[in-house]
Amino acid sequence: MYTVNYKEREVHEVDLAGSKKTTMRWLIGKSTGAKSYAMRYFEIQPGGIIPEHNHDEEHEIFVLQGEAKLIGSENHSTAKKDDVVFISSNEPHGYDNRAGNKPFSFICVIPLLDSD
Amino acid sequence: MYTVNYKEREVHEVDLAGSKKTTMRWLIGKSTGAKSYAMRYFEIQPGGIIPEHNHDEEHEIFVLQGEAKLIGSENHSTAKKDDVVFISSNEPHGYDNRAGNKPFSFICVIPLLDSD
Repeated sequence: MYTVNYKEREVHEVDLAGSKKTTMRWLIGKSTGAKSYAMRYFEIQPGGIIPEHNHDEEHEIFVLQGEAKLIGSENHSTAKKDDVVFISSNEPHGYDNRAGNKPFSFICVIPLLDSD
Repeated sequence: MYTVNYKEREVHEVDLAGSKKTTMRWLIGKSTGAKSYAMRYFEIQPGGIIPEHNHDEEHEIFVLQGEAKLIGSENHSTAKKDDVVFISSNEPHGYDNRAGNKPFSFICVIPLLDSD
């Protein structure tokens, strides 16, 4: 068992093409004992975006703060604090906080890749 | 892709022997498209506890609110808002909010069981 405040984890700029003002922290991964899935923390500043993309790994998301447009969703819905979002394998998705006035932060759980 | 506020999910009393004042909501599971791991929301009221227990499934936890004693941890540590907790397979663990004055709530991600 271990416990750590998420703010103690190293901050990485998200380097997906087209991403802006977005950082990520690994919270739980292979190096900390996880076997098949990992927990990450994302924060998209006002004016920021992770553009539409897709991949094999599904996402299980819990929104901690703010509100953002869910790119790829039907009806261009939004996700906000206390919302849960599930994104299926290979489903196009992204998060748009360009119209927001506060950070959009969320937990994202993803299957571990062999390369992680 | 789907989005739901966690408060819309059904509340279940936690029935693990010895548990008190503790509820759980399934946020993402097999019935909502998850393949190998699930996300749940737990809330332990002041005076409540989930006593020490263990099982095969590891836990990936993010604390949303409050503070509780981590049963089974070295040095009887606590977990509080913004903390991440990892509990390994078969590691004894529990959460004690009997001395707390506000709810202890957290996200807990767990491998899916065949029976889920």
